Amino acid sequence: MQYPEPIAQLIDGYMKLPGIGQKSATRLAFFTIDMAEDDVTAFSKALIAAKRDLHFCSICGNITEGDPCSICADKTRDQTHVLVVEQPKDIMVMEKMKEYHGLYHVLHGVMSPIEGKGPEDLNIASLINRLQQNPNIKEVIIATNATPEGEATAMYLSRLIKPAGIKVTRLAHGLSVGSDIEYADEMTLFKAVEGRTEM
Amino acid sequence: MQYPEPIAQLIDGYMKLPGIGQKSATRLAFFTIDMAEDDVTAFSKALIAAKRDLHFCSICGNITEGDPCSICADKTRDQTHVLVVEQPKDIMVMEKMKEYHGLYHVLHGVMSPIEGKGPEDLNIASLINRLQQNPNIKEVIIATNATPEGEATAMYLSRLIKPAGIKVTRLAHGLSVGSDIEYADEMTLFKAVEGRTEM
Repeated sequence: MQYPEPIAQLIDGYMKLPGIGQKSATRLAFFTIDMAEDDVTAFSKALIAAKRDLHFCSICGNITEGDPCSICADKTRDQTHVLVVEQPKDIMVMEKMKEYHGLYHVLHGVMSPIEGKGPEDLNIASLINRLQQNPNIKEVIIATNATPEGEATAMYLSRLIKPAGIKVTRLAHGLSVGSDIEYADEMTLFKAVEGRTEM
Repeated sequence: MQYPEPIAQLIDGYMKLPGIGQKSATRLAFFTIDMAEDDVTAFSKALIAAKRDLHFCSICGNITEGDPCSICADKTRDQTHVLVVEQPKDIMVMEKMKEYHGLYHVLHGVMSPIEGKGPEDLNIASLINRLQQNPNIKEVIIATNATPEGEATAMYLSRLIKPAGIKVTRLAHGLSVGSDIEYADEMTLFKAVEGRTEM
C-alpha cells in the first residue's frame, strides 16, 4: 500500500530540506496533517513569499526585501569598516552582538577545491570593486569560519586586498568565553596561546 | 537588526514543526531561499493539499483521500480480522510487512492519565460499534506500542471486547530479529522468555 498522494507529495517536500530523511519527513508530514489549518496556510505562504520577496543586496550581497539592504542604506553606520562573512545569516549573528557598527560583505560561500568552488564562484569581484570605489574604507575584517576552507579564503582575500593599502584583519581565535581549557581542542589551544594578550 | 519580514515569517513556520527550534528553523529558512523555485512551490502546495484533501476514513479512522479508505473498500481483504493501531502511520508500517491482509482500526492515540486522555478521547466507540455491526469479525489484534500507555490501552480494549465473544490478541513481545541477547533490556528479555515458543 502506498501513502495517499497528498501525503507522499508532502513527504517529498520535507525530504528536500537538509538533514531530513524519509523517516523524519514522514513524521513531519503526519504532524502537519494534525496542525491547525491557519498555521499550515501561513507556513505555506511564508515559503512562497520568502522565495519571491527576498533578493540579494546589490552592494553587499546580504538578503533583503529592498535594495540596497537596510545596513548599506544606513549612512549613520561606520563607513570605514567592511566585515566579510560567508553567509547572510552570519550578519544576523554579528548584529546580535551589537558591538560592530560598520558595513558588511557576503561571500556566499568559501573557496573549496573539493566542491570545485573557486574565487570566481564567490562574491569577491564586487568586494574588490567596492573597495576601489569607496576610498573611505580603511579596514576589511575577515570573518569567515574557522574551517580550513574559511582560513584559505581569508588568506586569499588578504593577499588580494593588502596591496591596495587597506588594512586586513581576521577575527581572533581562542577559547570560548566560560569554557574549560580541559575541553579545548589542541588547535584552539594553540591559537589561544599564539594570540595571547597582555594583561 | 531584525530578520527581513519574509524570513522571520518562514522561521516562525518551521518552528511550528516538532523538534525544530529557533536555530534549526533559521538554518532551514536560509536553505529554502537557496532552493529551486519549483521545489519551494511544490512544497508549499503540498502543505495546503495535505491539509485540504486528506480526511479520516469514517470506518477505520485511517488517513485517506476518499471515504471509505482503500483498505476498508477492498472486499478481497480478510474481513474477519481487525488490527488496532495507535496512528495512521502504523498502518503503513504493517502494510510494508505484506503479511497481514485483514482490516485496521486507528485509535488516534492511547489512554494517558498524564495527558488527561481517557477512552472517550480515542476512536474506541466506533470500534465497538463496528464489531457489533459486523458479526463476521472474529479476531481483534491489538498493536498499540509496547509503552505503559500502549499496554494499558490494550488491556482496556481487551476487557471491553472479550465479553462479546470476540478473540482478542496482542502482538508478541520479544527479541528483535538479528539482535544480541546481550543488548536486550530486562523487560524485553522477560517477555521473550515468557512468550517462548516450542521448536
